[in-house]
Amino acid sequence: MNDIRFVVSPRIMGEEKFFGPGIATLLHRVEEYRSIRQATASMGMAYSKAWNIIRRAERELGFSLLNTTTGGREGGGASLTEEGRTFLRQYDRFCALVNEHARTDFETAFGRPPASGPAATKGDPSEEDLDPDPVS
Amino acid sequence: MNDIRFVVSPRIMGEEKFFGPGIATLLHRVEEYRSIRQATASMGMAYSKAWNIIRRAERELGFSLLNTTTGGREGGGASLTEEGRTFLRQYDRFCALVNEHARTDFETAFGRPPASGPAATKGDPSEEDLDPDPVS
Repeated sequence: MNDIRFVVSPRIMGEEKFFGPGIATLLHRVEEYRSIRQATASMGMAYSKAWNIIRRAERELGFSLLNTTTGGREGGGASLTEEGRTFLRQYDRFCALVNEHARTDFETAFGRPPASGPAATKGDPSEEDLDPDPVS
Repeated sequence: MNDIRFVVSPRIMGEEKFFGPGIATLLHRVEEYRSIRQATASMGMAYSKAWNIIRRAERELGFSLLNTTTGGREGGGASLTEEGRTFLRQYDRFCALVNEHARTDFETAFGRPPASGPAATKGDPSEEDLDPDPVS
C-alpha cells in the first residue's frame, strides 16, 4: 500500500453544523487584525459570507462571538467577546486532542503510523472548511 | 451555552484526500448488493461519479478495491477485493476509535459531555461526504 495519512477536521453542531476550521480561522484573524474586513480579505472570504457564518454560530451558541465598535457591522474595529474567546480556545483544544488521539488510532487501525507530509489540518482552510455545512 | 455536540468524519489522504464516509458507504453497499449500479442507485450517486471516486482511491492506494465480473465495468456483478475489504475494515475501525476518543476529548475541552442527538456520523453520508475532496 502507498503512503497514507489522515485528515480530521472536527465540527461542532447544534441544530446544524455551525463551527469548524473555517470560522475558527476567521475568528483568529479577527483577533489578529481587529477588523472583520481585513480578516475576511486575508482569507479570500466574502464579507457577507463571514457574517452569515458568524450569525449562524451565534444563534446556535446562544451568545455573541464578536464585539464591533465605531461604524457598526459595516466598518470600525472588531474583537472577540469573552465568551467567543473562551469558545475558540475550547474548540482549538478539542481539535488538538482529537488529532493527537487520531494519530494513535490510525496506528491501531492500519498497523502503521501515518505517513509524514504536509499537515492538512494546518494552514489556511480549504473552501470546504470555510463553510461549516456546505450541504444545506 | 446551548446544547452542542461534535461531528468528526476522518478522511484518508495520499497525494490528495481520497477516502472518507462517502466511498466507505459505497463499498459497503457494493458488498450488500453485489452490484455497483445498485449500490450507487441506493445512494443517489451517479454511476460515473462512483467510478471516479473508486479509481482515484485505487490510484492512491496502489491496489484494486473492486472485482467486476461479466459485462465488465458497465454491468455484471461486483465485489470487494481482499485488499479492499481489509482496507474498508481498517477505515471503519479508525472512524470508530476516533469518534470514541473524540467524545472524551470533547468533555476535556468543553467541560461537559456532548449533547445527545441524532448521530451525524451515522446514516447516509451528506453530499459533502460523498466526495472525498469537494474542493479540488
